[in-house]
Amino acid sequence: MDVHHAGSVGIVAPRKLVIERPLTLDCGRCLPRHELMVETYGELNRARSNAVLVCHALSGDHHAAGVHAATDRKPGWWDSAIGPGKPIDTRRFHVVCLNNLGGCRGSTGPNTINPDTGRYWGPDFPIVTVRDWVKSQALLADALGIERWAAVIGGSLGGMQALQWAIDFPERVAHALAIAAAPRISAQNIAFNEIARQAILSDPDFHAGRYYEHGVVPSRGLKLARMLGHITYLSDSAMRNRFGRLLRESDGRFNFNYEVEFEVESYLRHQGQSFVERFDANTYLLMTKALDYFDPARDYGDDLVAAFRRARAKFLVLAFSSDWRFSPARSREIVKALVAAEREVSYACIASQLGHDDFLMPLPEYHRVLGAYLARVAQEAGA
Amino acid sequence: MDVHHAGSVGIVAPRKLVIERPLTLDCGRCLPRHELMVETYGELNRARSNAVLVCHALSGDHHAAGVHAATDRKPGWWDSAIGPGKPIDTRRFHVVCLNNLGGCRGSTGPNTINPDTGRYWGPDFPIVTVRDWVKSQALLADALGIERWAAVIGGSLGGMQALQWAIDFPERVAHALAIAAAPRISAQNIAFNEIARQAILSDPDFHAGRYYEHGVVPSRGLKLARMLGHITYLSDSAMRNRFGRLLRESDGRFNFNYEVEFEVESYLRHQGQSFVERFDANTYLLMTKALDYFDPARDYGDDLVAAFRRARAKFLVLAFSSDWRFSPARSREIVKALVAAEREVSYACIASQLGHDDFLMPLPEYHRVLGAYLARVAQEAGA
Repeated sequence: MDVHHAGSVGIVAPRKLVIERPLTLDCGRCLPRHELMVETYGELNRARSNAVLVCHALSGDHHAAGVHAATDRKPGWWDSAIGPGKPIDTRRFHVVCLNNLGGCRGSTGPNTINPDTGRYWGPDFPIVTVRDWVKSQALLADALGIERWAAVIGGSLGGMQALQWAIDFPERVAHALAIAAAPRISAQNIAFNEIARQAILSDPDFHAGRYYEHGVVPSRGLKLARMLGHITYLSDSAMRNRFGRLLRESDGRFNFNYEVEFEVESYLRHQGQSFVERFDANTYLLMTKALDYFDPARDYGDDLVAAFRRARAKFLVLAFSSDWRFSPARSREIVKALVAAEREVSYACIASQLGHDDFLMPLPEYHRVLGAYLARVAQEAGA
Repeated sequence: MDVHHAGSVGIVAPRKLVIERPLTLDCGRCLPRHELMVETYGELNRARSNAVLVCHALSGDHHAAGVHAATDRKPGWWDSAIGPGKPIDTRRFHVVCLNNLGGCRGSTGPNTINPDTGRYWGPDFPIVTVRDWVKSQALLADALGIERWAAVIGGSLGGMQALQWAIDFPERVAHALAIAAAPRISAQNIAFNEIARQAILSDPDFHAGRYYEHGVVPSRGLKLARMLGHITYLSDSAMRNRFGRLLRESDGRFNFNYEVEFEVESYLRHQGQSFVERFDANTYLLMTKALDYFDPARDYGDDLVAAFRRARAKFLVLAFSSDWRFSPARSREIVKALVAAEREVSYACIASQLGHDDFLMPLPEYHRVLGAYLARVAQEAGA
């Protein structure tokens, strides 16, 4: 890709930060130190007031924008929104993105070595929560000398981190942007996660999470988990428009076997297979549990309004009309609780086609709303 | 259960019928003979005009009503609707229900012996279609001396058989009742089926479909497939109302492991496990393919109206408001095409909570509509 085109942050380099302070997790265990892979885009201003944290979703990482080499075929996962002149404008903001604790792209996680044992963490890695991530990100902010974020931004599971930040560190977040998120996931969401987990856990190559040491990966299970995820990322109508009932072979006859037959099958198998090549099954398990556990109201007597009363941030909540994984109704629950808690909140539901995945797409209306909001954030931040 | 209670057909006995006539299948292969397990309820009248065919859905069989022994804990799968005084009233109708070809409850299928080889059919069993089933059912009708059905009735995949009957054997169906069905399944439906299939096919215990001979069953895969099915049988709100985010253990703390934690997980695992004990994986594969392939318009230049113009039956189409697997919109597609084809059609969308599974439930409004329609059918049939 052309890394010199207008709007690209160009070639970027990730770096590993060592957090030397202990982190006590929700599960009760304590990590004396941990490492985080981080990328930043745009300059931190002298007042250190223009820093923005971008939190990744289930399968994301620290590489949100730009490329690592001029020959890279694909830019970071949110390149459409981050860069000079883009909604998250790197001419004004210093953007920080990290691979969360428990991730599989270089941060301390199941596929790294546990210094206490000299073995892969694997199943010994603690199950982490959104609260744990936010704590870890706060330690990262300290290390980076960032006292207060101009904004914490995320989509899906990333949006949940933005909400948790506003509740847990009210003085450290000026704006929280929760895109295509939910105040907690539904029984149906948990059910999808549970099937994904069972697919991985029941794969004979999982070896109780110690597959690294067996020289295999639970590829069948992870592939199924990802295929299932993809159904929930796309709307029914998007699938219909994109694949319909088209047959893969053009002669129009049925196979009468279990080979790939419909286009949608081909798409899912491809998505599943390529995911296996880039993602770790133990991390996938952790991420689904973090989703299941996320429930900020829980700490406040199941009262989301009480939770949000602690926040000092202003909020932008965005939803997509075609998203059935975290539907606009779920975003409106967030908005309703914020209003009841007398917080300042802006809300938009973007007319969309694709489904949950739209939060990653450069829909004009979406980027207009996001950009306009962030222009105000930049102004407030003196950026 | 009390088999003598009003409304029960009581103790019933299945019987095996041998269809000695050759059946050429859509895949091109021919079965010289096949066996079908059948149950009947209510008397066939002298005019042979009161016979009703009940077609089963994905995991159903011939045992639709009553019990096989007084000690049975559960009656047949549609006992709520079939019996004296019930919507499918056995005082007026002679009800026929069979286990479809390719099934796993005694009819010729993958888990029976292929007489040509002396081995289990397993993966050698041909993939069958809804059209094949209807052909096989027509041979069964011949064997039973039933020239014309007063009604062919089914829910879900069963409803598709009712539609196919009306198109393929117009003179032999007086009424076709398609409940919670669709004129063909969507890309999203195919995607769910494909994941279910991949779960089974990738299970190491599947042994390319020859697991019978290895003394194992692909239980992990079949369990996952069934868990996934259950998500689509229940509405999001039904799952919320039934399970919410309730934790299985009452102390209210999270486990921080991958054991059963939320009630919905417990439910799904139980459903998956009990299915493994009663169903055959090869049959499950066949059933999902029959669903994928069902598309009566395909034989008529992708014109559903042209397909329905062949029908001579009258139609009842029923949908459930909370069904997202085959939503009311899909039923309305059927109705619209029937109207355009100038067929007589009645349609109702039943207000419901549970989702697709509601077609098996004794909802008062549902049974009132079904019962009133069938009372007219009985009258026409002189029953």
